[in-house]
Amino acid sequence: MSEMLITHARIASMQAIEAPFGELEANSVRVRDGVITEIGHNLTTTGTETHIDAKGQWLLPGFIDCHTHIVYGGDRADEFARRLEGVSYQQISQEGGGIKRTVRDTRATSEDELRSQSARRVARLVEEGVTTIEVKSGYGLDTETERRQLRVADALAREFGITVKKTYLGAHAMPPDCDTDADAYIDFVCNTMIPQIASEGLADAVDVFCENVGFTLAQTERVFTAAKQAGLPVKGHVEQLSDSKGARLAAQYQALSVDHLEYLHSDDIDALRQAGTVAVILPGAFYYLKETQEPPIQALRDAGVRMAVATDINPGTSPVASLLTSANMASVLFAMTTEEVIRGMTVHAAAALGLTDRGVIDTGKRADLTLWAIPSPASLVYEINGYRPTQVISGGKHVI
Amino acid sequence: MSEMLITHARIASMQAIEAPFGELEANSVRVRDGVITEIGHNLTTTGTETHIDAKGQWLLPGFIDCHTHIVYGGDRADEFARRLEGVSYQQISQEGGGIKRTVRDTRATSEDELRSQSARRVARLVEEGVTTIEVKSGYGLDTETERRQLRVADALAREFGITVKKTYLGAHAMPPDCDTDADAYIDFVCNTMIPQIASEGLADAVDVFCENVGFTLAQTERVFTAAKQAGLPVKGHVEQLSDSKGARLAAQYQALSVDHLEYLHSDDIDALRQAGTVAVILPGAFYYLKETQEPPIQALRDAGVRMAVATDINPGTSPVASLLTSANMASVLFAMTTEEVIRGMTVHAAAALGLTDRGVIDTGKRADLTLWAIPSPASLVYEINGYRPTQVISGGKHVI
Ligand SMILES: [Zn+2]
Ligand SMILES: [Zn+2]
Repeated sequence: MSEMLITHARIASMQAIEAPFGELEANSVRVRDGVITEIGHNLTTTGTETHIDAKGQWLLPGFIDCHTHIVYGGDRADEFARRLEGVSYQQISQEGGGIKRTVRDTRATSEDELRSQSARRVARLVEEGVTTIEVKSGYGLDTETERRQLRVADALAREFGITVKKTYLGAHAMPPDCDTDADAYIDFVCNTMIPQIASEGLADAVDVFCENVGFTLAQTERVFTAAKQAGLPVKGHVEQLSDSKGARLAAQYQALSVDHLEYLHSDDIDALRQAGTVAVILPGAFYYLKETQEPPIQALRDAGVRMAVATDINPGTSPVASLLTSANMASVLFAMTTEEVIRGMTVHAAAALGLTDRGVIDTGKRADLTLWAIPSPASLVYEINGYRPTQVISGGKHVI
Repeated sequence: MSEMLITHARIASMQAIEAPFGELEANSVRVRDGVITEIGHNLTTTGTETHIDAKGQWLLPGFIDCHTHIVYGGDRADEFARRLEGVSYQQISQEGGGIKRTVRDTRATSEDELRSQSARRVARLVEEGVTTIEVKSGYGLDTETERRQLRVADALAREFGITVKKTYLGAHAMPPDCDTDADAYIDFVCNTMIPQIASEGLADAVDVFCENVGFTLAQTERVFTAAKQAGLPVKGHVEQLSDSKGARLAAQYQALSVDHLEYLHSDDIDALRQAGTVAVILPGAFYYLKETQEPPIQALRDAGVRMAVATDINPGTSPVASLLTSANMASVLFAMTTEEVIRGMTVHAAAALGLTDRGVIDTGKRADLTLWAIPSPASLVYEINGYRPTQVISGGKHVI
């Protein structure tokens, strides 16, 4: 049995209480076997546990990056450079660049090399206090590579001592060498890949890129149906570039989350609220694409839809290995408040992954905890690259 | 005598040669007593020097952050949070917030505490490979505190083993408790502060905030004249919020740099070119202020004016402790190419500080060097928080 006692902390519990950031009166947390067992004021040491005197530092839940494409092979800096020099994305895509290139590179990368390339990025997140990461497949678009990506996700969890939730995103794009049409590829996704990946325990959820440049609403619904049949919850990349009504469909399928949402119509917000679906805000892609249509934050806020914030880290539209910078962008670009943003990286991000055991500091919750020498949690959102946690604890064990 | 040999590097020299990033054919650099003494292919070890086998990593000049307000006391996260909740900057300023608050906090902070608070931010820059930092005063606005800020700048240089260039910015704002008018304060800046600070060796240059919310063109000229009389070169915060013709005036005074430039008129660009004045681009403030008027990058490029990129790190408009994130913003927001941005953090940033001994990898230059495990220097601009240098060398000595 392992025990830990943290004392003299200011506890930003993120519980749904009046105080900003759910700050508690209590200043101590006791952890047993990776779970928070007691919260109180000036709890006393038994003399046998690991004792951390926080000396007035803030204690927060471990952060949760609930939307990433962090497992991929290769690098697309040269495409970024060419776009700055005026070459169009269409031109780059016609030359075999863009997502097709990442699919080729990922297919050509061995499992261990893929783990190593991805670990560099995961290390950046963990350094910032991230203890739970969602990882999507979607750069294989064939059974072998999709499964390889998801196995790498598991390997990264073991390597860093954190939690990784895996999302199958076979319906990310059409495979580059595919000689069938999109409906036939969706047949393959629904009838072959989803059952196999579900049976191997390689996915916790299924996602679809529902968009005019992705898959249609009808194709998306077929994938959602196959996911449900396989016993997996769904999520959707929806309304990023156009109002395709993916959010409304996702709500019908009790989606854990709908992600991006720049073009979400206000008529569709109530369906999200009713379904308890989380709205995942991804400012990184908005920033890189110089998008001007903002997601309807005020309407989501007014409706009481829970909002999360994530990096969407990927080699094309959001090469951002920093959840805190994404948080800052959500505030600066979308006027989300500092409290909304921090709830969006903790309790609401947990909900976006269907996790009820974390995201808040409370008894019975998993001991995913971070300690910060900051004036206030708001400082984490206000400065870019200003702070890193002094300690990071995942399931009661130090990972930093 | 200390010697160092770096072999098997890809050398992005930033010299003005055809190859991207000034890449050399040679792969080795020899350093003696902090200076690069030899560049060649497969140079051989004498057996007595410190030998670094770069194993194919990229070698770049140490980065130069040529515009910072990094030495200040206090924190303004609460103002950031309130602005997101809809409170206007005017309201915050009327309540004693904004720059007035930072001046009060800086005055109330002891020299050692000021060093400690600022060191947290400097550490972030050095971690990214920054070996030269410019530090401005301007949060004291009285003789005692301005000098304290500049002494702290010197202390930070010693603490981190890097170079700090000091800029006196007494003409940053009106002191909060001042019962005289702006002209009388400028009298004090010109007749008392500049001579004293120059005589104590506490400044390498003099800067003015020339703006409708700062000081007038006539007041700016008086400060420039006093600086010249004291033997100090000048710089200007100009054309950030309006076209006040500060750039043209600065060029007349052979300014090292003009900084911000969102509202720079194309008619004034040729004067900059003729004076050899560097245009310092500061995307952090543009981003935080949600400014829409971009600096005239294409016109500056066409005219052959050298452009630098800096953080402008300050607690109000640019709390960005990351030169690489600023570099990314310069590309994403202003379409500066990755090569322009990296020249802007090296050779052109050196020019903005009047330094001719660094910013390129060449014989006779100071050995400020960084080593990176990257596919290409462009990757440093393309990803946010993607990479940190594996080694950082300042004047021939490792600082990381
Ligand atoms: Zn995504
Ligand atoms: Zn400035």
